[in-house]
Amino acid sequence: MSYSVAVAGASGYAGGELLRLLAAHPQFEVRTVTAHQNAGEPLRRVHPHLASYGDTVLAPTTADSLRGHEIVFLALPHGHSGAIAEQLGGDALLVDCGADHRLESAQDWADYYGGDHYGSWTYGMPELPLADGGRQRAALGGVRRIAVPGCNVTAVTFALAPAITRALVEPRDLTAVLAVGPSGAGKKASVDLLGSELIGSANPYAVDGGHRHNPEIRQNLRRAGGTEVALTFTPVIVPMSRGILATTSARLREGVSLADVRAAFDEVYADERFIDLLPAGVWPRSGDVTGSNRAAIGVGVDERAGRLVAVSAIDNLGKGTAGAAIQSANLALGLDESLGLPLDGVAP
Amino acid sequence: MSYSVAVAGASGYAGGELLRLLAAHPQFEVRTVTAHQNAGEPLRRVHPHLASYGDTVLAPTTADSLRGHEIVFLALPHGHSGAIAEQLGGDALLVDCGADHRLESAQDWADYYGGDHYGSWTYGMPELPLADGGRQRAALGGVRRIAVPGCNVTAVTFALAPAITRALVEPRDLTAVLAVGPSGAGKKASVDLLGSELIGSANPYAVDGGHRHNPEIRQNLRRAGGTEVALTFTPVIVPMSRGILATTSARLREGVSLADVRAAFDEVYADERFIDLLPAGVWPRSGDVTGSNRAAIGVGVDERAGRLVAVSAIDNLGKGTAGAAIQSANLALGLDESLGLPLDGVAP
Amino acid sequence: MSYSVAVAGASGYAGGELLRLLAAHPQFEVRTVTAHQNAGEPLRRVHPHLASYGDTVLAPTTADSLRGHEIVFLALPHGHSGAIAEQLGGDALLVDCGADHRLESAQDWADYYGGDHYGSWTYGMPELPLADGGRQRAALGGVRRIAVPGCNVTAVTFALAPAITRALVEPRDLTAVLAVGPSGAGKKASVDLLGSELIGSANPYAVDGGHRHNPEIRQNLRRAGGTEVALTFTPVIVPMSRGILATTSARLREGVSLADVRAAFDEVYADERFIDLLPAGVWPRSGDVTGSNRAAIGVGVDERAGRLVAVSAIDNLGKGTAGAAIQSANLALGLDESLGLPLDGVAP
Amino acid sequence: MSYSVAVAGASGYAGGELLRLLAAHPQFEVRTVTAHQNAGEPLRRVHPHLASYGDTVLAPTTADSLRGHEIVFLALPHGHSGAIAEQLGGDALLVDCGADHRLESAQDWADYYGGDHYGSWTYGMPELPLADGGRQRAALGGVRRIAVPGCNVTAVTFALAPAITRALVEPRDLTAVLAVGPSGAGKKASVDLLGSELIGSANPYAVDGGHRHNPEIRQNLRRAGGTEVALTFTPVIVPMSRGILATTSARLREGVSLADVRAAFDEVYADERFIDLLPAGVWPRSGDVTGSNRAAIGVGVDERAGRLVAVSAIDNLGKGTAGAAIQSANLALGLDESLGLPLDGVAP
Repeated sequence: MSYSVAVAGASGYAGGELLRLLAAHPQFEVRTVTAHQNAGEPLRRVHPHLASYGDTVLAPTTADSLRGHEIVFLALPHGHSGAIAEQLGGDALLVDCGADHRLESAQDWADYYGGDHYGSWTYGMPELPLADGGRQRAALGGVRRIAVPGCNVTAVTFALAPAITRALVEPRDLTAVLAVGPSGAGKKASVDLLGSELIGSANPYAVDGGHRHNPEIRQNLRRAGGTEVALTFTPVIVPMSRGILATTSARLREGVSLADVRAAFDEVYADERFIDLLPAGVWPRSGDVTGSNRAAIGVGVDERAGRLVAVSAIDNLGKGTAGAAIQSANLALGLDESLGLPLDGVAP
Repeated sequence: MSYSVAVAGASGYAGGELLRLLAAHPQFEVRTVTAHQNAGEPLRRVHPHLASYGDTVLAPTTADSLRGHEIVFLALPHGHSGAIAEQLGGDALLVDCGADHRLESAQDWADYYGGDHYGSWTYGMPELPLADGGRQRAALGGVRRIAVPGCNVTAVTFALAPAITRALVEPRDLTAVLAVGPSGAGKKASVDLLGSELIGSANPYAVDGGHRHNPEIRQNLRRAGGTEVALTFTPVIVPMSRGILATTSARLREGVSLADVRAAFDEVYADERFIDLLPAGVWPRSGDVTGSNRAAIGVGVDERAGRLVAVSAIDNLGKGTAGAAIQSANLALGLDESLGLPLDGVAP
Repeated sequence: MSYSVAVAGASGYAGGELLRLLAAHPQFEVRTVTAHQNAGEPLRRVHPHLASYGDTVLAPTTADSLRGHEIVFLALPHGHSGAIAEQLGGDALLVDCGADHRLESAQDWADYYGGDHYGSWTYGMPELPLADGGRQRAALGGVRRIAVPGCNVTAVTFALAPAITRALVEPRDLTAVLAVGPSGAGKKASVDLLGSELIGSANPYAVDGGHRHNPEIRQNLRRAGGTEVALTFTPVIVPMSRGILATTSARLREGVSLADVRAAFDEVYADERFIDLLPAGVWPRSGDVTGSNRAAIGVGVDERAGRLVAVSAIDNLGKGTAGAAIQSANLALGLDESLGLPLDGVAP
Repeated sequence: MSYSVAVAGASGYAGGELLRLLAAHPQFEVRTVTAHQNAGEPLRRVHPHLASYGDTVLAPTTADSLRGHEIVFLALPHGHSGAIAEQLGGDALLVDCGADHRLESAQDWADYYGGDHYGSWTYGMPELPLADGGRQRAALGGVRRIAVPGCNVTAVTFALAPAITRALVEPRDLTAVLAVGPSGAGKKASVDLLGSELIGSANPYAVDGGHRHNPEIRQNLRRAGGTEVALTFTPVIVPMSRGILATTSARLREGVSLADVRAAFDEVYADERFIDLLPAGVWPRSGDVTGSNRAAIGVGVDERAGRLVAVSAIDNLGKGTAGAAIQSANLALGLDESLGLPLDGVAP
């Protein structure tokens, strides 16, 4: 049997990747795609790569267009999902790829986003290890509301969570620098995101703590370790259309060895199909996960500096957004978690 | 009057950039260019962009070819400059763009490079602030042997030195992640450096402390701060042919404010023509220094994390190698430090 | 039921893409992967993106390793497939992704490749329109030997064949210029293919008629039009890892209108699932077919110049190599032609 | 002595490159820079790479701001230079980098641009060979109004003019396909020009004769050959921020040999400092002219196809715009034509 699906905000990059993956999902059937500015246009005018959608036309993004589907994926700018979700109500499965329902703390929301805080939904990161030894996966079974994690958040959380949950590092002193593709910044016309500005350059943004993904990372690591963490987090846009490579580090607790670190990562990720822990001395490349739902992780210890170094690679639109959304939806519906999700990247 | 110049290792990327800058230098005249594998070939077969060199042919890299010039720039793989410098002897000005004469500690040399250690030459980083309040510039006047800093080293040192020399941060807990172009890895045929492997991907290398530039950075910061430092340093190759963007961070000492940090950077770099300290809240982009001898620096404080964040951008072949070499040679010869060195980048 | 598959030359880019697609094919099961230099290594050391192959190890490329499979894909440098095919013999389905069995004319082989000519196999381009009104597809049913077309050949043939087969243009005056990614040139360590040489530049090669794909294009168009053609064909390597955008033109025959041209292309490609003829005034982008088996085609008329202009986009590793190989294998085995072949591209 | 200079439209890419080159010009002194939207902002907010301009602020683009300078460079969108030039009047040297004064034919203007046609100014392409055996250079001495050629126009004209002026090819059958960087399309916020849309893709535009540079190319070749020409011309945006590689071809006249072609190009470009005719068999790469005022040309013959193939590389912002503007201004003022113009490219 198959579920009827609507995708709101289908004209953006996240929406496009959702549609690409959904077209290959054996049990999801996309019935409606909506957009705001592009409503009324053929889908292929905004996504020429999605040939399998033929002559599909974009409907306006309204509760009426979205009502009557079993699953609704919301790929809207932050601040828009909350309102439309309230209008929709009902027991359809709503999967929000935006930020509106990620943060539990109204204060964090006010500090980093502002505007109405619509509260938080079940967090769509099945692999997240929890302080009680469980996984976030358990919370997703049967839910009707899912908040999909941010892409940078996913990369940093996967790199640091095992060390935090096993208390191998000092939690107050975490650093993360990310090489990211511009598709994570969305499909808005902006001089800063022009090819001419990005090609041939590495451009940092939201430096010194201002990035909106910061509180969400801290929320995840707090849940993993049961304690507050402090993190310096800097994304750098580099000339690749998609992909994230996160290089993170943390001071090792007294007496923690490389063997302890490797063991912790091995155990935490042993059964995770979509987390690809690389052998000691091997480091991930973002290009190797392009188009996939896989996160590749490398971890080691800088003996001289006494710090753990963990590097993670994901596709910001794949495991970073659309893949995570579908994986969590599979779980909510009691399906095989990996249905419709590619493991192999498209490389070179 | 003009000085006669030879460039050894002219067929590589560093050699090529030296020749590009030297062609525009009002008092240096390139008389000889040498190579190893490409000896006997027209220079333009290996550097088609250097039209101003006309039909110049590459001589073999031997002491005989290099002898008889007032200035010899050595752009050779590490391990080659030491021997040829000994053969040359004499009082010509030798400027080594390789690693052979950078490290003062024979132990560091043995740990990171191995093979004969030829000792250290005067370090070619005029702007380096010293613990005694002076600058490395003072040491360069009249010298006949100069060791040009490594490119990654330059980017990280400029980002962190002011905070270290003013004791604003904990010296044991420094982190640096660099987005770097592949030209810094040289012009050797290697599958890892193929366009197909690099385009569309961010690829880390020499993670967890193994990178050869690590001890050199520590040496610089030790000289700036008068104390040992510990640093985790990870370069990530991104799809731009040249450029480095270094994102660094360090734990602030108790009670240090953003104002203290800005004041320190302002004072340390106030008179440095080639260090471009950006206004608060503005961050450098590597593309804006392409082809120039300028380092652009942005600095701020992540209040929540209690860490200083400093970002620097240089051209790895410009201020990172060839520009620094010429700037130091100007100083050694008592010329205007900035002769022949571009301040503006080529952008977009 | 499923077929047992071996892939020879699995360590290269074409081999890697074959494995990526084969992993998702419902009726093909990869049992053996072979390589020359990398024999004995884990597959993932050369293809980190192929997580679904787990711990698979590369066997040596020998007849013994390849024997006993129902399908053998040969992704070897030209000159190697012929010999190994002779050793294999038997009635396994052999699919040669190299050039050895593409050219019918021994003279063409001698002129452009040299060395032994092993004759030609059934040409693996199902969509090729023939002068008798049929398609090449018909020749592929039940065969045991398939020669997969060259990637540039596929792009140019699809752009020009409809006009040639309908005699709308002068056949002696064809031009094609291709923007191509370097993965088409293979995974060999070469300075010309280094990221530093390619990023930020557009580099032509094999200009003025020397390219080995030239006689193969002429062979295809001769079969489509029943007459000799002359073609100037220039590939230009641009900084994208994969993809081909071919811009072709031809002088229109007297009295041929845009309507005639559009009608011809509409009719010739009407039933072709993997050829995506775009509406008038819309032109393909190579990025929109990345990772897919689709060819996107735009066609129009330059009234002032009296020339047809046709632009085609393919993924050189997808429809240009691995996709075409699998599509033809499906046909040879009587399976649904589109089994295991993606229609949508991975974009942006 | 030095000339006072104003640059109108300084906030765009062409304006930025003009400022970069003017800063190094020994006899031009930039006194005023103007912009429309960005008026009142510091220049470095829009051009962070132009450190040598310190705290210069952008004035509004008005006749009042521009009046009182000896040289005014106009780098404005087409349609704006004509009006402002009329307001300025006087005998200052006006150099228009836009299209307003390039086309002699009011009909061409109406067909391709529309709006008021302000007539044509002296065409700023010194190297253009004329049908009478002279060069366009002769017309530039002492003039007060210069129209700078379009960037694509320059690349195609240099590739084809020698064959046209020597009547070696059929003039009715010319083709040109250009790989171009997006900076040629300007600094306007547009989804089509986003890094996400361009990186990893080759995107054609203005196919089938619609491009505005087409009539200007025909005008140049008509002046070179004394006869009408017909040209199919297709630009393809590729992922490099700047640069043009034009691949052109034309049917050879009966009996014309490769030797004839090489001789013609040798003679036509023998004394041109900024045209770099490469040896037979060597082809230009766009990356080798980045940042320079040089055009690199390769030419050969495709014997089988009976066509000449000529490839040219320029920097669209350098020789394609700002360099040509300064070169022509030098000539108009009786200065050394090459003053302030780099010959070497910035590579890799």
